[in-house]
Amino acid sequence: MTDFAIDPQLAQDTTLVGDLPLSRVLLMNDSRFPWLILVPRRAGLVELIDLDEAGYGTLMAEVRAAAAALRDLLAPHKLNVAALGNAVRQLHVHVIARSRDDAAWPRPVWGAGTGTPYDEAVRAAFVADLRRALPRIADG
Amino acid sequence: MTDFAIDPQLAQDTTLVGDLPLSRVLLMNDSRFPWLILVPRRAGLVELIDLDEAGYGTLMAEVRAAAAALRDLLAPHKLNVAALGNAVRQLHVHVIARSRDDAAWPRPVWGAGTGTPYDEAVRAAFVADLRRALPRIADG
Repeated sequence: MTDFAIDPQLAQDTTLVGDLPLSRVLLMNDSRFPWLILVPRRAGLVELIDLDEAGYGTLMAEVRAAAAALRDLLAPHKLNVAALGNAVRQLHVHVIARSRDDAAWPRPVWGAGTGTPYDEAVRAAFVADLRRALPRIADG
Repeated sequence: MTDFAIDPQLAQDTTLVGDLPLSRVLLMNDSRFPWLILVPRRAGLVELIDLDEAGYGTLMAEVRAAAAALRDLLAPHKLNVAALGNAVRQLHVHVIARSRDDAAWPRPVWGAGTGTPYDEAVRAAFVADLRRALPRIADG
């Protein structure tokens, strides 16, 4: 068994928010959508059902916490939660705050044109807000 | 509080598989993708985090069972699991078996052209297989 490492594509597309007990929490570098990605820090996972029952329960609780953080910070019109993995096979869960004014609404965000990078200060402030809103987060 | 009823659009697009303890399990009428939809039978839910913690845990266990059923029956290249709700706001979770040969791969299935209805006998056989593969299912 190899050590855990974030998939290179995910690493390139995101900024670290921090670690929950099981998951590394990443923020997509796309200011059009407030978009978290949770990656369980175990090597070799592809499907949600590759996790044992306890791990699955922990991940789902962390997804719930991430969704609650986005709701508390942004009061979005809708949350989107998804584990797809068609492009990047490493198990990861998207938690996205959607607005009726966003660049893809009402379509899903995947494949919706090119991302818009965050202004650095805006991103740093958002990451700080997310860290405060996420219980039990620590430096990754 | 009104009684629970399946959203009319969801009802129109699907066939009943049966009821798990919390969720009604539906099969999308689109033979291009083996595609289950789980709808918790509680009125007024929109977001996953609208469920209390126990209900959320039950729904996630049922999503796990549905994913395992599709994997056991079809050995798909990838499973896609998602709660979006941009079009139909009633809380529902998609559990979809993806193949590298399917009509949308590697893109998500939503918005991928027009559905292809099942042959009636094929659908009945698939529903019977799903009912056998899903523990604790009952007639809805």
